[in-house]
Amino acid sequence: MSNGISHLFIPGPTNVPDVVRRAMNVPMRDHRAPDFPELTLPLFEDLKEIFANETGQVFLFASSGTGAWEAAISNTLNRGDRVLMSRFGQFSHLWVDMAERLGLDVACVDVEWGKGVPVEDYERHLAEDPSIRAVFATHNETATGVTSDIAAVRRAMDAQGSDALLFVDGVSSIASVDFQQEAWGVDLAVTGSQKGLMLPAGLSILGVSAKALEASARAGMERCYFDFADMVATNKSGYFPYTPPVPLLAGLRVALDLLFAEGLPQVFARHHRLAEGIRRGVEALGLKLCAMGPQWYSDTVSAIRVPDDIDSAEVCRIGFQRYRTSFGAGLSKVAGKVFRIGHLGDLNEVMCLSALASAEMSLADAGAKVELGAGVAAAQAYYRAALSERESAVALEEVAS
Amino acid sequence: MSNGISHLFIPGPTNVPDVVRRAMNVPMRDHRAPDFPELTLPLFEDLKEIFANETGQVFLFASSGTGAWEAAISNTLNRGDRVLMSRFGQFSHLWVDMAERLGLDVACVDVEWGKGVPVEDYERHLAEDPSIRAVFATHNETATGVTSDIAAVRRAMDAQGSDALLFVDGVSSIASVDFQQEAWGVDLAVTGSQKGLMLPAGLSILGVSAKALEASARAGMERCYFDFADMVATNKSGYFPYTPPVPLLAGLRVALDLLFAEGLPQVFARHHRLAEGIRRGVEALGLKLCAMGPQWYSDTVSAIRVPDDIDSAEVCRIGFQRYRTSFGAGLSKVAGKVFRIGHLGDLNEVMCLSALASAEMSLADAGAKVELGAGVAAAQAYYRAALSERESAVALEEVAS
Amino acid sequence: MSNGISHLFIPGPTNVPDVVRRAMNVPMRDHRAPDFPELTLPLFEDLKEIFANETGQVFLFASSGTGAWEAAISNTLNRGDRVLMSRFGQFSHLWVDMAERLGLDVACVDVEWGKGVPVEDYERHLAEDPSIRAVFATHNETATGVTSDIAAVRRAMDAQGSDALLFVDGVSSIASVDFQQEAWGVDLAVTGSQKGLMLPAGLSILGVSAKALEASARAGMERCYFDFADMVATNKSGYFPYTPPVPLLAGLRVALDLLFAEGLPQVFARHHRLAEGIRRGVEALGLKLCAMGPQWYSDTVSAIRVPDDIDSAEVCRIGFQRYRTSFGAGLSKVAGKVFRIGHLGDLNEVMCLSALASAEMSLADAGAKVELGAGVAAAQAYYRAALSERESAVALEEVAS
Amino acid sequence: MSNGISHLFIPGPTNVPDVVRRAMNVPMRDHRAPDFPELTLPLFEDLKEIFANETGQVFLFASSGTGAWEAAISNTLNRGDRVLMSRFGQFSHLWVDMAERLGLDVACVDVEWGKGVPVEDYERHLAEDPSIRAVFATHNETATGVTSDIAAVRRAMDAQGSDALLFVDGVSSIASVDFQQEAWGVDLAVTGSQKGLMLPAGLSILGVSAKALEASARAGMERCYFDFADMVATNKSGYFPYTPPVPLLAGLRVALDLLFAEGLPQVFARHHRLAEGIRRGVEALGLKLCAMGPQWYSDTVSAIRVPDDIDSAEVCRIGFQRYRTSFGAGLSKVAGKVFRIGHLGDLNEVMCLSALASAEMSLADAGAKVELGAGVAAAQAYYRAALSERESAVALEEVAS
Repeated sequence: MSNGISHLFIPGPTNVPDVVRRAMNVPMRDHRAPDFPELTLPLFEDLKEIFANETGQVFLFASSGTGAWEAAISNTLNRGDRVLMSRFGQFSHLWVDMAERLGLDVACVDVEWGKGVPVEDYERHLAEDPSIRAVFATHNETATGVTSDIAAVRRAMDAQGSDALLFVDGVSSIASVDFQQEAWGVDLAVTGSQKGLMLPAGLSILGVSAKALEASARAGMERCYFDFADMVATNKSGYFPYTPPVPLLAGLRVALDLLFAEGLPQVFARHHRLAEGIRRGVEALGLKLCAMGPQWYSDTVSAIRVPDDIDSAEVCRIGFQRYRTSFGAGLSKVAGKVFRIGHLGDLNEVMCLSALASAEMSLADAGAKVELGAGVAAAQAYYRAALSERESAVALEEVAS
Repeated sequence: MSNGISHLFIPGPTNVPDVVRRAMNVPMRDHRAPDFPELTLPLFEDLKEIFANETGQVFLFASSGTGAWEAAISNTLNRGDRVLMSRFGQFSHLWVDMAERLGLDVACVDVEWGKGVPVEDYERHLAEDPSIRAVFATHNETATGVTSDIAAVRRAMDAQGSDALLFVDGVSSIASVDFQQEAWGVDLAVTGSQKGLMLPAGLSILGVSAKALEASARAGMERCYFDFADMVATNKSGYFPYTPPVPLLAGLRVALDLLFAEGLPQVFARHHRLAEGIRRGVEALGLKLCAMGPQWYSDTVSAIRVPDDIDSAEVCRIGFQRYRTSFGAGLSKVAGKVFRIGHLGDLNEVMCLSALASAEMSLADAGAKVELGAGVAAAQAYYRAALSERESAVALEEVAS
Repeated sequence: MSNGISHLFIPGPTNVPDVVRRAMNVPMRDHRAPDFPELTLPLFEDLKEIFANETGQVFLFASSGTGAWEAAISNTLNRGDRVLMSRFGQFSHLWVDMAERLGLDVACVDVEWGKGVPVEDYERHLAEDPSIRAVFATHNETATGVTSDIAAVRRAMDAQGSDALLFVDGVSSIASVDFQQEAWGVDLAVTGSQKGLMLPAGLSILGVSAKALEASARAGMERCYFDFADMVATNKSGYFPYTPPVPLLAGLRVALDLLFAEGLPQVFARHHRLAEGIRRGVEALGLKLCAMGPQWYSDTVSAIRVPDDIDSAEVCRIGFQRYRTSFGAGLSKVAGKVFRIGHLGDLNEVMCLSALASAEMSLADAGAKVELGAGVAAAQAYYRAALSERESAVALEEVAS
Repeated sequence: MSNGISHLFIPGPTNVPDVVRRAMNVPMRDHRAPDFPELTLPLFEDLKEIFANETGQVFLFASSGTGAWEAAISNTLNRGDRVLMSRFGQFSHLWVDMAERLGLDVACVDVEWGKGVPVEDYERHLAEDPSIRAVFATHNETATGVTSDIAAVRRAMDAQGSDALLFVDGVSSIASVDFQQEAWGVDLAVTGSQKGLMLPAGLSILGVSAKALEASARAGMERCYFDFADMVATNKSGYFPYTPPVPLLAGLRVALDLLFAEGLPQVFARHHRLAEGIRRGVEALGLKLCAMGPQWYSDTVSAIRVPDDIDSAEVCRIGFQRYRTSFGAGLSKVAGKVFRIGHLGDLNEVMCLSALASAEMSLADAGAKVELGAGVAAAQAYYRAALSERESAVALEEVAS
């Protein structure tokens, strides 16, 4: 069945807005031409606003987010460096794996999947082990739909007098939920183009603090493709050390324009609203989230536990084949147990309702006892109220001004 | 609120498939070049298959469907000719208006909106008035969601020994529901690109029977742009009398490929399935269709009566502004009383559920007492069963072969 | 051979700028929605600027330019009306043919192909025949590359005290060379989307004077699709009497933005510069234009006479098949004798040089004795000087301001 | 001056065919969905045909070609390994720089810019130093327009009984000129998407021999993003270790289809023909190539020496600003002394003529004494003869079959 649009609710790649798709469909141009910096220099500046990174720098690599993880590590740490990490989902797991493969000495705190960064454990480790050179935190664990408190991580570091570098995986959070690189003391913040930035995959974006830039001059592993120094040297005048993926840069221009036009606070509010509707729907269906409490709820992705006798992979299969809907599968430890609805990027309320409607049918077809329409109804009720309230607020503001 | 896709449920323009949009995004080419007929000649042939018109010809005009209405009349009838028409919605009304403005002598049967072509009345008129040169029938009245029985019209004509030309408005039916130009004895069948053919507006398509072609040689009003003879002379070798809209032709190629790949019977079955889900949803919400009985139900558009104390224009306004959803408004006599869900073209089940979800919220916000989720649930139940049955049938076929 | 771009030098459809193509690749939208006039109302206004038509109105029809010819006639003239026309190329010929088919009583002045509107003959006819209700003039005869003096036609009419309507075919002139509907007293000015407006075919655009609007209220033939009154009634609020071709409207927005950004006087100057380079090239090759003197030279299309022993159709065939270049063929009386280079719309100097380079090879392959590179060299010399002069002028202006 | 198309003659990114651009403009999809391998598995196979690599494997990384250079080294060599390289242009220079930064022990042969891989020197080094673990050769030095004989390098290695790995930079050669990974004994062959593969930058493509795959299991530096093992493990079933750039994969599908439809031998012949025309033009202008003899001539890029008193940067600046043409600048040692015309990818004869025409004007404006049109004329003469011969050959084949 290939009629109509496909319904894409994976937590990335997200839906690319039509206007961004059009902006990427450009003839090639010379990336060494005099007019190229007119495109790139404002991108570099605007990305600093996205990261809330005032005094550092943001780099764009042609790679997936994994590449930016590696860039962050290889430019600022040396083999054998002691680092503190935690693992509570497939993506934090992979990051630990990378750190070990790149030769770091990883102190890893394993956390029950469904919870996030264990700030108290971190603080204890930092107290006990002054050799820790870097602390890693996954802001939003995409596999479990868990958001962690990054500001608290830095507070814990400060409390222990640690001057370690703070690495944050913001792949599925940055540009969708609030992120404050500078205020939270994040030294290396990683994201990818295919999430909140509403582009295809192919660009990784790395926010680097002034302190991390300095560190990269003194430390770091052998590296070339991901080298900060080459980027600093060429970005300054608007160029790159090698041929950049121009269509993605052209699309990024428009994606940033969209985000700024909506306003970042409004973008975050929208993500919260859409997510909350999904959560109301999940609850009304009698299902539970993987995230173990409201403090962990992610506004960008919901991992939903299926009843014990149901295989979540079957839910995904049915959604894909029968209802033209892509949900995220359960990965690794939660394979078969959860399916995920990505609700980040270019989405609106009715799209989220279609995700719930499709999920209800897929669950039912897979054998789950869910009341058709119940999840949709709960989300509708929430969206009606939230949008009405939002319109009133806007109207009041207009009267006031 | 401009995030995410807009939800387009007007009965045309319909959603253009992405692959068709891409196909239209072509550099210009010379429409008099030797390779141009490679595009056009197969289009002419394939359209005959769409119309089920074997011995006649199908013309493509750069115009809206209104233009093809005019082409049909001006090429085959003379001013003062007596014609039989009926009026039961805004579009059949406009057709009558055109016929009168072009100088035809119209015998018009007015029918209650919600019913369709009055075959018995037609038969009586034909019996009483042998001067009738042409009979007009609106296959699918887009304003009320009413489909009429065209084969029955021709049977009535035959019964009365009438050799009048049969004109059919198939704008919102052809390529979406079964249409048999030759078998039903239709002489002039009109459609537009922006409906079942899943293209933007800009092309009108006119199926002409052999008999009507002959008539055009003997009769007709002064005409030039819409002249059949110029088309016949140039189409023969794959060209047009004037510059055709090439991107639409390129898109038409792909749209036809999609229809044939799915199979016309499957296309019609899908339209029926999607429409039936919508109707189940409407019923579950306690609402009534404008169409006054199952024999009139349209598989391409449902006109839904709102409760007496509700303004359907308000439902449309809310859908558009709050839920980014475009419904068709009630037109003319049913303005304020109905809103319409177009369910033709490139659609699937989950898209139809989003139409219902959005309609429920819009109705509720406009003050209607509807149970949120109830319409969605009824449609979900129907779609689940229908798709499961369909899959079983396909599987059986595969086993058998 | 299908590598690389094709080189399109027909006088329409012209090359559509990439940014315009992108702008047309839009999802469908509701043409009756509240936000639609935000697109259309500025289009209507801006087109008046393109036509230099202040007190009248500009209509957009989904049709080719031929449709707008018909709209102009059928709305303002009656069958049997006496009109004055001239014929000096395939397109002025077709216009005469249309006028006769629509029932006008045509006084036609035949002029040698290569010359334009015979103003003195017109004046004599007007003097002798006060019954002339309308005068028709082809501003730019696309078949012969001949531009006529429209202001002079109106002066001749004024000199004879004629209050006839002035119809102008500006299909291949408007938006490319200077056109002043109001100042020149043009009542009905026709163009199409696929020429100077740099869009695909599919829209005809008709500038109507206040006087012609009034005439349409009192006169006119039976009509419906092309009726002014329906347009006036709906355009007022930003809508159309029937579904308009939305992608073309979206493209028109961007095309107009491009024209205004460049500045209409600069657009006209560029067309003159590009054309003059082509003419220098033609002269250097020892060939002659169809246009019989500089007063007739067209800045949008050059019809080039081939040597007597050469078949110009062969030149076009070779250009198309061997060099991936589309030239305009010689039509009707000049078939086999001329080929045409269209140099209007989105073009630059180097593109024009490629037209000449390709023409030289095609001519040589067809047997013509031309010196390869000679045409290119002459055009290069002209372009170098003209661009250098232009840059100096711009620099001076900048110094001055 | 931004009218018309820009003329892109840098040696990459090359012009992306329209049909490839359209193919990349796709909605996002789930790269973990069951249908994804239908796209990827054939790509992997077809790329092996492009590399003429039967028994090895081809990897796709989201990165520039520089990334694939790094992947090749970090997966198969260890820090401190002795390698043999040569340097005769900016890109071979950068490769040496990378090798040193990644910790290899480089024996570097410096060669006069304008010549290529010094096979005899290589053979001597191999004879003298049996510790050489890898030999690096730049197939086509993009900075100087020099193509080297890779088969000869392997022969020299064989002659010395070396079992070192052979690394080849085929960034600006593969898919444009003949490349035989398996027959020439190339172990690691690097290219990028933005050259002969006619895509935007963003994908690097690495052909790996069976021997190099084995080596990667035993050796290699710390690595993660560019790790072969992760690719092998996931590619097998059609997936990637992380989110791939789907639009580029979709475009690659169509680009490969184009190459295969034309036929790789025909693609190579076309590149030779286009290049030879450019070279004839250069010679007719009295200019010399940077490449010091026909054995070094590159069929993908010509680096052209400007007269001593001329600054080639000025030629490029004028081309870009006045004639909307992008030439490649002279880099590093040849900065100011050469400008480059890239003639690879989606090009045809008339496009190459426009490059020459634009270069002539730019040279003249920069003060060079060149005869306008002379280069164009020489190329025209060559193209006419070559295309005519080619057509005859095709016709003969058709008669024969």
